[in-house]
Amino acid sequence: MADAIADLDARDPLAPFRAEFQLREGLLYLDGNSLGALPRATAPRIADVVSREWGDGLIGSWLKAEWVSAPQRIGDKIARLLGGRPGEIVAADSTSINIFKALAAAVSLRPDRPVILSERTNFPTDVYMMQGMEAFSGGRLRSRTVDPADVVGALDEEVAVLLLTQVHYKSGLIRDMTAVTRAAHEKGVLVVWDLSHSAGAIEVDLNSANADFAVGCGYKFLNGGPGAPAFIFVAERHQLAARPVLSGWFGHARPFAFEEDYEAVADIGRFLCGTPQVLGLSALECGIDLMLRADMRELRRKSVRLGELFIQCMDERCAEFGFSLVSPRDAARRGSQLSYAHPHAYEMIRALGERQVVGDFRAPDVLRFGLTPLYLRYRDVVEAVEQLRGVCVSGAWDRPEFRERAAVT
Amino acid sequence: MADAIADLDARDPLAPFRAEFQLREGLLYLDGNSLGALPRATAPRIADVVSREWGDGLIGSWLKAEWVSAPQRIGDKIARLLGGRPGEIVAADSTSINIFKALAAAVSLRPDRPVILSERTNFPTDVYMMQGMEAFSGGRLRSRTVDPADVVGALDEEVAVLLLTQVHYKSGLIRDMTAVTRAAHEKGVLVVWDLSHSAGAIEVDLNSANADFAVGCGYKFLNGGPGAPAFIFVAERHQLAARPVLSGWFGHARPFAFEEDYEAVADIGRFLCGTPQVLGLSALECGIDLMLRADMRELRRKSVRLGELFIQCMDERCAEFGFSLVSPRDAARRGSQLSYAHPHAYEMIRALGERQVVGDFRAPDVLRFGLTPLYLRYRDVVEAVEQLRGVCVSGAWDRPEFRERAAVT
Repeated sequence: MADAIADLDARDPLAPFRAEFQLREGLLYLDGNSLGALPRATAPRIADVVSREWGDGLIGSWLKAEWVSAPQRIGDKIARLLGGRPGEIVAADSTSINIFKALAAAVSLRPDRPVILSERTNFPTDVYMMQGMEAFSGGRLRSRTVDPADVVGALDEEVAVLLLTQVHYKSGLIRDMTAVTRAAHEKGVLVVWDLSHSAGAIEVDLNSANADFAVGCGYKFLNGGPGAPAFIFVAERHQLAARPVLSGWFGHARPFAFEEDYEAVADIGRFLCGTPQVLGLSALECGIDLMLRADMRELRRKSVRLGELFIQCMDERCAEFGFSLVSPRDAARRGSQLSYAHPHAYEMIRALGERQVVGDFRAPDVLRFGLTPLYLRYRDVVEAVEQLRGVCVSGAWDRPEFRERAAVT
Repeated sequence: MADAIADLDARDPLAPFRAEFQLREGLLYLDGNSLGALPRATAPRIADVVSREWGDGLIGSWLKAEWVSAPQRIGDKIARLLGGRPGEIVAADSTSINIFKALAAAVSLRPDRPVILSERTNFPTDVYMMQGMEAFSGGRLRSRTVDPADVVGALDEEVAVLLLTQVHYKSGLIRDMTAVTRAAHEKGVLVVWDLSHSAGAIEVDLNSANADFAVGCGYKFLNGGPGAPAFIFVAERHQLAARPVLSGWFGHARPFAFEEDYEAVADIGRFLCGTPQVLGLSALECGIDLMLRADMRELRRKSVRLGELFIQCMDERCAEFGFSLVSPRDAARRGSQLSYAHPHAYEMIRALGERQVVGDFRAPDVLRFGLTPLYLRYRDVVEAVEQLRGVCVSGAWDRPEFRERAAVT
């Protein structure tokens, strides 16, 4: 086995990318789906933005360093990763805020339909944003969540917009974007796709799926840094019809004319709101630039192999410890992550942490491992499972301090 | 005169602060009200956040480096500058987004009143956010703007909330926060104060003015860096009654329990939405920490003196060139900036830029100069006016390339 693994790593066409990241040797980081690792290019770039662009260039850098167009420039780069056209994505604000923008835009295109639909187990912030919008609408809009299996069946003439996450944050299950979008469109329903666990993780082709709206996260597989700006995609055909609800000055047709009335710019820029967050955008761009150098098909191929190897190791080495695979066993239906349920998931994640294996816990009982093909090696996966076995065999997880819950896990 | 100026600088108790900023010698930067200068402490701090906290600490830094509580920690520091109590401010998102949060919260407290009131010449994004909210409300809310002098008279039983900027972005005129708030409360109207040109510029005491809500900008007088996170103040007495409309997971009572329904945390944290922008917050904190070391009364005293010196120099050296003072001549009614109208304001600002004097242009005809007592010297003000005189005497502003308008000015 060890030889076969060494061989996989030796023949891995993506192996050189690992050196592009700052990663402590000995650390097995399987949490890049929560916070991506630091690209080596980022620190010097940020130092330059701070000292030269801000410190020396001051206000002039809005034009000279092209800060003012960073949301569009970086958006266009993200579009290349996701099958969007130039001018269909901007990078700005948080995923939650962008969900609000996309839902409001969709609702404005379906004024006679009161329902915003999602699945009950969607990532919480998605549903929370729907609920906030409902509460604010004064009875005009209703947030409705259904069981995951009932989503397509719940599409009807009452539904204005469906909000779905393409790759489920907990199970890794992939939704078929093309099929769901088609089913929604047949009922006149628009769809907002949350790509937080898709972007940089699986192949996405927004326009061939005929997507309407999408949002996604910059700090996971895109390696944009903690709290990186998120992004929003609005298909060209919807841009001019949708009036932004978060209508800030950066979305105005002439922001620096300081006019009294809002007039949305006639392009994707109308989905900007306040002043762009330059430091965060600059770090995000480093992550995107690195991702653009990788072949996405190759990335997906390696992601699938890493997942299959992880499952094989779990089957062979941890079968007796009561783990059950939450993610689909069929790689075609699974994103770039693997989740196992276990009654002591929380303590085990903490015990693994002590052994330099970083995964994460998702309530109530899930161990979640992110597979990031840019910097993870096949041998890392084997070693991580071996450490998990060690934790189980030794009972090392069964310590009182591991049971204490922290605020963030 | 030169001796008197040198003497002012020599006796300036704030003079040592200038060395805390990276500022090119010879540059006369009178635009710190648009983008504050770079504190020397910021670059090493950001380098540490990137390389050690993110690069080495990875996901664990949410707890170990206290990223997760940064919005509250920094908010509490901002509260010390503005007369807020601990737990009344969070740093997050942009000013525009925070305006939306504050307006929505205020409106939820006055459900039977349809009007959001402001003045016509408020900073555009303030009014634009009102207009977006009106459009989304489906007829429930109306955005109304009146002439600046008519604001108090327009307060009536229809008005839910008044949105005002304390220091006007163009004229620098200070609104009396206590008096306006009292007049509004007498009519049952809540007030949202935009402190973008107040925070770090003048003495503000939110609670002694009985303020309800406030928002403000991190990248102007607070020196938080380009596109720095903004802040939102919600008086303790309103926090639990106001349901957030932008109800993202970071405002949930238990964000990491991943519950299905939104439950706002029972404190200022409910005005957070998505994942905090760690890089931007870290830079902002450096600016705030520096500001906290200065005595705000001393800051205001110097700001007034800088302004009076500027006006005196303009009166003595530029009287014949057709400038008219837009800002109040009475220092007590003026923020930390000075504006002059001139038919060729745009070209003059550009000509000044070539001479290393940075001010900014505000449409249609205003030259605006920010007075930042932490890093501006009395002699800088004298020299800036002397350069303006030079531009006028020589006619150096009258060049075709200075007439071409750029996207950002």
